[in-house]
Amino acid sequence: MQNLLQISKMINGELKGDPNCRITGINSIAKAEKSQITFSTKKFIDTGELQASALIVPKGSETKFDNLIYVDEPYLAFATLLEHFNPTERFIDGISPKACIDDTATVGKGVCIGQFSSIGAHAEVGEQTEIHANVTVYPGVKIGKNCLIYSNVVIREGVIIGNNVIIQPGAVIGADGFGFTRTSTGTPVKIPQKGNVIIGNDCEIGANTCIDRATIEETVLEDYVKLDNLVQIGHNVKIGKFSALSAQTGISGSTEIGQNVIMGGQVGLADHIAIADGVMIAARSGVTGSISTTNTIISGYPHQDIRSWRKSQVIIRNIDKYIDRIKELEKKIKELEEK
Amino acid sequence: MQNLLQISKMINGELKGDPNCRITGINSIAKAEKSQITFSTKKFIDTGELQASALIVPKGSETKFDNLIYVDEPYLAFATLLEHFNPTERFIDGISPKACIDDTATVGKGVCIGQFSSIGAHAEVGEQTEIHANVTVYPGVKIGKNCLIYSNVVIREGVIIGNNVIIQPGAVIGADGFGFTRTSTGTPVKIPQKGNVIIGNDCEIGANTCIDRATIEETVLEDYVKLDNLVQIGHNVKIGKFSALSAQTGISGSTEIGQNVIMGGQVGLADHIAIADGVMIAARSGVTGSISTTNTIISGYPHQDIRSWRKSQVIIRNIDKYIDRIKELEKKIKELEEK
Amino acid sequence: MQNLLQISKMINGELKGDPNCRITGINSIAKAEKSQITFSTKKFIDTGELQASALIVPKGSETKFDNLIYVDEPYLAFATLLEHFNPTERFIDGISPKACIDDTATVGKGVCIGQFSSIGAHAEVGEQTEIHANVTVYPGVKIGKNCLIYSNVVIREGVIIGNNVIIQPGAVIGADGFGFTRTSTGTPVKIPQKGNVIIGNDCEIGANTCIDRATIEETVLEDYVKLDNLVQIGHNVKIGKFSALSAQTGISGSTEIGQNVIMGGQVGLADHIAIADGVMIAARSGVTGSISTTNTIISGYPHQDIRSWRKSQVIIRNIDKYIDRIKELEKKIKELEEK
Repeated sequence: MQNLLQISKMINGELKGDPNCRITGINSIAKAEKSQITFSTKKFIDTGELQASALIVPKGSETKFDNLIYVDEPYLAFATLLEHFNPTERFIDGISPKACIDDTATVGKGVCIGQFSSIGAHAEVGEQTEIHANVTVYPGVKIGKNCLIYSNVVIREGVIIGNNVIIQPGAVIGADGFGFTRTSTGTPVKIPQKGNVIIGNDCEIGANTCIDRATIEETVLEDYVKLDNLVQIGHNVKIGKFSALSAQTGISGSTEIGQNVIMGGQVGLADHIAIADGVMIAARSGVTGSISTTNTIISGYPHQDIRSWRKSQVIIRNIDKYIDRIKELEKKIKELEEK
Repeated sequence: MQNLLQISKMINGELKGDPNCRITGINSIAKAEKSQITFSTKKFIDTGELQASALIVPKGSETKFDNLIYVDEPYLAFATLLEHFNPTERFIDGISPKACIDDTATVGKGVCIGQFSSIGAHAEVGEQTEIHANVTVYPGVKIGKNCLIYSNVVIREGVIIGNNVIIQPGAVIGADGFGFTRTSTGTPVKIPQKGNVIIGNDCEIGANTCIDRATIEETVLEDYVKLDNLVQIGHNVKIGKFSALSAQTGISGSTEIGQNVIMGGQVGLADHIAIADGVMIAARSGVTGSISTTNTIISGYPHQDIRSWRKSQVIIRNIDKYIDRIKELEKKIKELEEK
Repeated sequence: MQNLLQISKMINGELKGDPNCRITGINSIAKAEKSQITFSTKKFIDTGELQASALIVPKGSETKFDNLIYVDEPYLAFATLLEHFNPTERFIDGISPKACIDDTATVGKGVCIGQFSSIGAHAEVGEQTEIHANVTVYPGVKIGKNCLIYSNVVIREGVIIGNNVIIQPGAVIGADGFGFTRTSTGTPVKIPQKGNVIIGNDCEIGANTCIDRATIEETVLEDYVKLDNLVQIGHNVKIGKFSALSAQTGISGSTEIGQNVIMGGQVGLADHIAIADGVMIAARSGVTGSISTTNTIISGYPHQDIRSWRKSQVIIRNIDKYIDRIKELEKKIKELEEK
């Protein structure tokens, strides 16, 4: 429990109201009850039915309420307080006697490893990293400090992972890329996948997401890349810093994605293309070629600028009416010709 | 082995034929052999080439055959007899000494837990529930009675699961939702995901499907919800009773789906929308807004009523012919103008 | 290390240059350094900036370079040499004492099984097959010789797998198909899934891919079928020899795919349809009906011949201009009529 003054300092806010007001938790604006704090990103909201004891608002907000904290980024303050009032507990403590750590593996100070997890030969696990139950770390893998690796994650041989990386359950890092050629008689022959995966610092990988190892060289996620669940990253793909990909999106082999690129869910990118920094790709887009203009918003399949796409879609929804107008024109022309 | 009279009673049917006819199994109409029973949902079929010894048909059927059983729902009778002739065996017996059950966990009567599976602190597993090998049940999870949880399932902390729930291999329940904000300089910051997942009774979750925990509050599947494989359920989603979602479908955060909603495969729903009861969504639809009319059928992306969508699609397939008609009109107009 | 003559023999090539030139590795044309060999599939390339010591080219190539090896299929030669210079090591050796092998299971000569993996009752594992850590092989499964099964794979009861099959991490083979009927009052009832999965020789299954067991009879992958990651194969599907499906593609129940069929990523196929031999299906296509013409290329949703689809797409991207032309025609007609 904290008083409002303490909370205000915690989020670098400016307090207007009772500094001694006691706060026991944080909740959404609709569900927050007495003694809880809540937040709004809007400049003005009607607080008539608000049950919360305090409200975080953006600086310059005109909302009227007894206890207000003004901050630059209310959503950021929410993130801070949500963790503060509901701290993540470590589920495991130290290295389970039921884990299987190879004699040649190096495990840093404070590392936790759950039961039925394996750390392969010559693998390295950095300080304070937490590896839950049933995780398989293959030989030669390097995992940084302060990582959190949930159950059933598989990290294939040689993969390199930075610090502060979170990997949700079931993700597979470093499986073979999908590469085949054919003999002269048509029999498929596997192209061996001998490259690697390198994941930067502060990345997050979603549940059951797959990041394939490169054929040669590396598949790369730069720092702070965020991948949602069931995402597919093909071999030799590069993803720039701060980019975020939503669920069920797939990136084909050798495609290069810039920094700060945002993709909605179920997007697909062709292979061997390049996406410029800051591009936003709407959900369900299919991107068939490179996008070289930074900060554009695109949509559709084949992809277009989102405004062109929306314009086309409005026409297509009403296409039967335009067809009727063509028929009407044909009728009139015929009448005119007969005259 | 059963005689036809016994089988007829088992499926509440009305027998016309030899009550003593011996039946050893059930099969599809094309593959059923002598001494097997088969079924048809049609009112009339030609039984000229039928090898089966008996046939289940809907009441009022006009099909001619020696041994017929009339029932209300032939497909339901098929389900009953398929299980009867091929009963599911328990693969495991009791609690494996190689499972890892926390001292504070509660395990009901008749529970089976396979090798290399973990039950976390304060977790509860209801009577007769079967948990296969390599399953990770995190602390505080509550699993009801008579559930069947296949290998490699991960159930994250605090998740609540009802009775008679089946979870296929590799499913991940309660991974963190995909929530990020940014600092004023653009660095992504994780929104902690402190909510939960609640799954009702009689649900089934497909292989490698992911159901994310809520940010705050809960992601909810009501009773009898059926999810196919590789489905993505975002944080704070609600799915109403009896709804069924086919493979590779994805539901974005905070969307609410009514009861008896049916979705084909590879459907995508935007976030924060609501789908009315009884709506059917065709495979590969992309639903960008709420659907408030119950029992409608929709299709396409952006979604439309399925009849409008089909009409548009027919025109689009032939759009070049309409363009030719525009060009023809332009030519004729020019001729008329020249006169 | 090899000299060029040895390498040339290894790939059945024709050497032009220094047979004693020492080669230490293979790399891409852009990254290859001195003492490495590289390759091109093109008939002519400019070798002005090439750092490699030798170059593999197709027979008849007009490329000028000191050390050339002419072969029929440069990409195939690349595959051979990539494995040669980076041989796959066995990560495990023999059967781990921490694996759980049922007394009634049969394990061939030279089989390796990792820690925390299970082989169920009456299962059979063929000679030289390698099963990594945390794999669950259910009772009655039959796995052939020389297979490679990565961590966290689940193979459900009774599944039959041929020789030389590779299964990437997290794949689920033989989960229940998605089959439900409803009672007269609408309650969903599970159709038991009592069929099987049969996988031929030399297949590869991608990470987190799901292949469902049949309701009755079998889901079948013929020899040399290659599936990428996160693919969904519904119950009772058949896939012909040499066919390859890219990531996130989904095949609905009972659909039959011919031989040598190639699909891009995120393709969806409706249920109960048939695809002829040699058909190519572009990425993101949605195939709603059977394709009976062999070797056609199709695209779009609903699918079309790829040339028709492209033509339609070009028109649709410019549809607003055609609408303007309709409006212009209407104006002119009106003018003519007024005259």
